[in-house]
Amino acid sequence: MQWCRVLHEGKERYGIVEGEELALVRGSPFEAYESTKDRCRLSQARVLVPVEPRNFYAVGVNFAAHVEWARERHKMQVGIPKQADIGYRSPNALIATGEAIVIPNDSPGPVEYEGELVAIVGRKARHLSEGEALGCILGYTLGNDLSERSWQLSDRTLWRAKNTDTFKPMGPVIATELDPAQQQIRVRVNGTVVNEYDTAKMIFSIEHYISRMSKYVTLFPGDVIWLGTDGACEPALKPGDVVSIENEHIGVLRNPVVAEAAAI
Amino acid sequence: MQWCRVLHEGKERYGIVEGEELALVRGSPFEAYESTKDRCRLSQARVLVPVEPRNFYAVGVNFAAHVEWARERHKMQVGIPKQADIGYRSPNALIATGEAIVIPNDSPGPVEYEGELVAIVGRKARHLSEGEALGCILGYTLGNDLSERSWQLSDRTLWRAKNTDTFKPMGPVIATELDPAQQQIRVRVNGTVVNEYDTAKMIFSIEHYISRMSKYVTLFPGDVIWLGTDGACEPALKPGDVVSIENEHIGVLRNPVVAEAAAI
Repeated sequence: MQWCRVLHEGKERYGIVEGEELALVRGSPFEAYESTKDRCRLSQARVLVPVEPRNFYAVGVNFAAHVEWARERHKMQVGIPKQADIGYRSPNALIATGEAIVIPNDSPGPVEYEGELVAIVGRKARHLSEGEALGCILGYTLGNDLSERSWQLSDRTLWRAKNTDTFKPMGPVIATELDPAQQQIRVRVNGTVVNEYDTAKMIFSIEHYISRMSKYVTLFPGDVIWLGTDGACEPALKPGDVVSIENEHIGVLRNPVVAEAAAI
Repeated sequence: MQWCRVLHEGKERYGIVEGEELALVRGSPFEAYESTKDRCRLSQARVLVPVEPRNFYAVGVNFAAHVEWARERHKMQVGIPKQADIGYRSPNALIATGEAIVIPNDSPGPVEYEGELVAIVGRKARHLSEGEALGCILGYTLGNDLSERSWQLSDRTLWRAKNTDTFKPMGPVIATELDPAQQQIRVRVNGTVVNEYDTAKMIFSIEHYISRMSKYVTLFPGDVIWLGTDGACEPALKPGDVVSIENEHIGVLRNPVVAEAAAI
């Protein structure tokens, strides 16, 4: 089952994907919902980010080949993590599929993609065992954890490097039935596959992350957990490019890249 | 003028403080609101956090004496920041005045207070000059940026150190008329003043922070910016303590401290 959030007749609505159409509901998958007779064609809908999270978590580093690449390519002082420490991103940076990634005028670059699987919390949870962990997840979507590498190295925090407006494309839908540890994530730039990896290679399992997080923080419906990327993130993105993150169950998160001057 | 958010007859309502009473409105200070005849006594109201932020910013390090203390007391590798980089906290950790700070069972400690002034964004803003910066702020409240220092040193991110549930008391009200660069912030533990500082000593001004942030991120109504603390944060808090952050215009943010075992 796939949930999609769209702007329908001026209102934000959730719907269930049925082939080429969306069957709109009253309510949301995070609470009670009921069917309606409203439908729209997906190709004509304005798709929104699948959720506006209250808490925006990101594992950051969870694949060995990506750590190796970041050390070599960017001289980052990053090692294989010893424990599953979660990080944060911020909702200001979210955009939906189809919306433009805007590179700031003063970005020294490179700006790179990171294609990620994203877990979306469906119900309030605390103190979950690893066996219970996936039970709080409604489903999964895709994320592009865009990163300005100069700022990642120069700034005291990741705020500009990771959370500049438009730097967090997320979508297109929430897929509720998939095994998060067996997913192929593929990245294309201008149609060419530039990165492909299997989520089976995570250093810490999703169950371990969620269980450990829930020991200290309450998970709320709509919270998102971005699960990291593997391998290299090249080539750097430039205005005029189109970057896509793909998965067979979730579909394609596709965003054009523009320069700030052009976007204003 | 002071805004207070309370639970009134089962509903979250904003009101304007009038002496010992709260004049409840329909709507909120972040959008249109209108007066009603509903009133309640402040002493009998259940006060909520003044806002549930979409983006939760924290300057982290913005006072020289605090940097010096952290280096000496905790051997933290922290220097005087060269530029105004913002950091993040997460809404899961917010609690209102009166609610209990819960120290996790496995916290090695020390858990320390950090009394802070908090700016609350009132309107959507981007690309503000320093002269325009304070124009997007609705008002100010108080925050206690509780910090588990062992986790701050051991973990890859600040997630447990700063964002464990209940580690971000915020309130009690939003004061709309004060000069943020001329405020005395006072901290008491069990009634004794343990820290007192003047926000005039900020390394980067609030105007500079907001202007710089707004170059890269859109500020949204309800976003909060925690403005850092000065000086020492001792003594460490222990179950049974009561910690208060005080300011003459905003009032008192008071929270008891309990052990997790006692809270479950």
